[in-house]
Amino acid sequence: MFLKNCWYIAAQADEVGRALLHRRIVGEPVVMYRTEAGMPVAFLDRCAHRSLPLSKGTLIGDTVQCGYHGMTYGADGRCVAAPGYETPPDHVRVRAFPLVEKWTYLWIWMGDPALADEDALPDFHWPARDGWTPCPGYLRIGAHYQLLLDNLLDLSHETYVHGATIGNEAVAEALPETFEKDGQVVVSRFMPSVPAPPMHVKVRGFTGAIDRHQHVFFIPPSFIDIDSRFYVAGTEDEDTGIVWRVLNGLTPETETSTHYFWNLPRGFSPGDPEMTALLHQQVTKTFEEDRGVLEAQQQMLTEDPGFEHANIPADAGPILARRLVARLLEAEAAVG
Amino acid sequence: MFLKNCWYIAAQADEVGRALLHRRIVGEPVVMYRTEAGMPVAFLDRCAHRSLPLSKGTLIGDTVQCGYHGMTYGADGRCVAAPGYETPPDHVRVRAFPLVEKWTYLWIWMGDPALADEDALPDFHWPARDGWTPCPGYLRIGAHYQLLLDNLLDLSHETYVHGATIGNEAVAEALPETFEKDGQVVVSRFMPSVPAPPMHVKVRGFTGAIDRHQHVFFIPPSFIDIDSRFYVAGTEDEDTGIVWRVLNGLTPETETSTHYFWNLPRGFSPGDPEMTALLHQQVTKTFEEDRGVLEAQQQMLTEDPGFEHANIPADAGPILARRLVARLLEAEAAVG
Amino acid sequence: MFLKNCWYIAAQADEVGRALLHRRIVGEPVVMYRTEAGMPVAFLDRCAHRSLPLSKGTLIGDTVQCGYHGMTYGADGRCVAAPGYETPPDHVRVRAFPLVEKWTYLWIWMGDPALADEDALPDFHWPARDGWTPCPGYLRIGAHYQLLLDNLLDLSHETYVHGATIGNEAVAEALPETFEKDGQVVVSRFMPSVPAPPMHVKVRGFTGAIDRHQHVFFIPPSFIDIDSRFYVAGTEDEDTGIVWRVLNGLTPETETSTHYFWNLPRGFSPGDPEMTALLHQQVTKTFEEDRGVLEAQQQMLTEDPGFEHANIPADAGPILARRLVARLLEAEAAVG
Repeated sequence: MFLKNCWYIAAQADEVGRALLHRRIVGEPVVMYRTEAGMPVAFLDRCAHRSLPLSKGTLIGDTVQCGYHGMTYGADGRCVAAPGYETPPDHVRVRAFPLVEKWTYLWIWMGDPALADEDALPDFHWPARDGWTPCPGYLRIGAHYQLLLDNLLDLSHETYVHGATIGNEAVAEALPETFEKDGQVVVSRFMPSVPAPPMHVKVRGFTGAIDRHQHVFFIPPSFIDIDSRFYVAGTEDEDTGIVWRVLNGLTPETETSTHYFWNLPRGFSPGDPEMTALLHQQVTKTFEEDRGVLEAQQQMLTEDPGFEHANIPADAGPILARRLVARLLEAEAAVG
Repeated sequence: MFLKNCWYIAAQADEVGRALLHRRIVGEPVVMYRTEAGMPVAFLDRCAHRSLPLSKGTLIGDTVQCGYHGMTYGADGRCVAAPGYETPPDHVRVRAFPLVEKWTYLWIWMGDPALADEDALPDFHWPARDGWTPCPGYLRIGAHYQLLLDNLLDLSHETYVHGATIGNEAVAEALPETFEKDGQVVVSRFMPSVPAPPMHVKVRGFTGAIDRHQHVFFIPPSFIDIDSRFYVAGTEDEDTGIVWRVLNGLTPETETSTHYFWNLPRGFSPGDPEMTALLHQQVTKTFEEDRGVLEAQQQMLTEDPGFEHANIPADAGPILARRLVARLLEAEAAVG
Repeated sequence: MFLKNCWYIAAQADEVGRALLHRRIVGEPVVMYRTEAGMPVAFLDRCAHRSLPLSKGTLIGDTVQCGYHGMTYGADGRCVAAPGYETPPDHVRVRAFPLVEKWTYLWIWMGDPALADEDALPDFHWPARDGWTPCPGYLRIGAHYQLLLDNLLDLSHETYVHGATIGNEAVAEALPETFEKDGQVVVSRFMPSVPAPPMHVKVRGFTGAIDRHQHVFFIPPSFIDIDSRFYVAGTEDEDTGIVWRVLNGLTPETETSTHYFWNLPRGFSPGDPEMTALLHQQVTKTFEEDRGVLEAQQQMLTEDPGFEHANIPADAGPILARRLVARLLEAEAAVG
């Protein structure tokens, strides 16, 4: 069960163009394309007539023609041509989803279109921020999106899973502060004068201790924004330190899989392609380690969903987030 | 749910000989072979004793010996030898299915053997007709057999799916006449003076317009016979035209798969192996295009079986056929 | 449904050492290892905190550290370290299974640990018997363990399945004596002056007729001990004959798969590696033939579990054994 009346990242903006792109979102098949004028469009990927996926059809101008009997739909989802009709049958429609382009992403609204509201977008402006340089990536993870939320809201796992890149003893040792604020869950850690993890040494050449700040924001239903800073100990100097965001858009694909759109926009080395490539390689390595853990965990949960877990203090963030999502699901069920 | 008290094509006659052939039909495992005298035999492919498929056993004379404990069955399905018995235990039988050989096919009756009646065979004599030349083929399609019926009863899809072989604009534009007659559904199209499709140009060298006749007969539960004619426009001349039947035997394998036995017996170029090879290649290409559509459609229906489809005029044939099958299923359920 | 309050073979003793070994037993994931002192340990292979399999973690001294958040468990399953705790949380435990080492095997108790009793081990001392030489092997078979019991309790199948190694006409022809005794089912055959099967000719060079004794003991829930003797006809001479046990430990993996631990300890040619290699090769060949039958049979039963089988006299052993297991399951359900 997923929240529907909310925005999810459907694609990176540059993935969608003049070809039909299929992607499953919250369990539903979706097809996306752009009109000749560049407007992004999203439909249920299923012809209203006989269920062939429209992504197996043809994009003709601004319309999609089904590959079975030629049913043709305009960008609003209405049938504009059908065999045997001089006047197209306007009772026939394919379901269209609100789709907006912002901050290098396409955002989709899978619930009631009347409720779609751009003001409800999470603040993911960082990849498009002046003077900053984005570093986007994508992985498909075979696990429920809330397992990814749990993972990102309890970063103590960096010590055990990511010792080769972003983790070391310091993270597990520093107990975070956890609280709910303005409809978000916040998990904050400050690690003064600790060794720099391997990836950060590579990226910034730290030779001594650093002050590490880690502020994790959970924005419901499926976004994590990490404000992450690394300074030469005692300096707070951005010129020698690292200031970046780790943005995570966790779009449910099915009950056991997730589209993981990540981005690491940074405020230093602007536009440097070698730095971008290094970061992409390091983050991919890190998140592939997570994949191994998350997919094994999902298999265990699928097998025995009722297993009762023990909690530890580091679970405060994940637990708050799960409660928040549960409240939102209840509220949506009450309305719908 | 499938009709049982009716004939299905079990195999091409030359597929079954002195080896044990396994094939699943209407969900049931079947094993077939011929006796030394050449009589075709079909059993449930499951030993009555401990369920090993008999097709994993040995054909000895006219009998089948199970490969586990040596239970041996005669051509009528009765046990003729078993370990520990001097007199074979005649309470032990494997279920035998009526199987008749006719018109180059083996026809099986999966329901009550007492009701099996050769007079109920559909008229598929064309491959064995004097002066005609058959062109048989087989495909396994991952879709319910009724999706194949829908496909063949609404040939407007030829325009969109089969533009490279048998389709062009003319087919979708010509509205067919559809009616029920003598327990069959008929869909007839006449397309006077239209361009010839690519395959027919290859086969017969048409240079100008043709008159195209297309009479589709649905013979319940799972047969489509298409009387298909192509004449040089205005001539009705069989010597320069094409007269053939497109025979389709759609034997359910499971709820989501079908054995597709097709045949294209023709009245011209009798016995010409190059013509037969060309037709086989063109039809296979065409039906492989259908496979792509049908299997994608089946996946969507499996995922959301309750999806409500919109109908268009071209659906008249498929809808009549589905109603006919539903009535027959009700009648069979009332009896059984 | 499997009996839980009983011993199963979990592994050959030499399979488990200073690495984490995963194995599923009666449907449950299990991880095994040895402490630095060599004591074998078995846990549920699932971290109590967030369900990651512990076999994906790290063995550190006598403890296992989970690969996700570093939860660490001692050899008794108690948590000895967890992030955020100075004093480890002793309410957190992973389920530990009694595991004992005996007669070259590790034996596991999947039920109530309070009931675990070494005196309840089946007598499988033969591989460790003075002057005898073991010949152990392992196969994973895709079939319920009771299908393997059926197989071993009705050896008439040797004639039809194993003609190349251990079977010939003599086995199917000799009706066995079958009875229950001391909580075991016994199936005994004596075949005086019969031809030797191919494997035994290879192993012992028999040139003429032999006297063959076959005493099969079913020890609930999942053990078969075959006392198997082959003498030059009329001699009972162990020096020219074969005396060995065929031991079968059939540990349920899932409802449709079994860990098959077999052993062929012998009283002749002690310690001869070439003889051991020959036996291993012959038995593996034989049991691979069984695998083909058993897995095909399992598929049929999965597809139609309610199929009513016909019984023959040779089924007396399997039927008695199934009744015995059913009584034990009822008794365990009544207690548990």
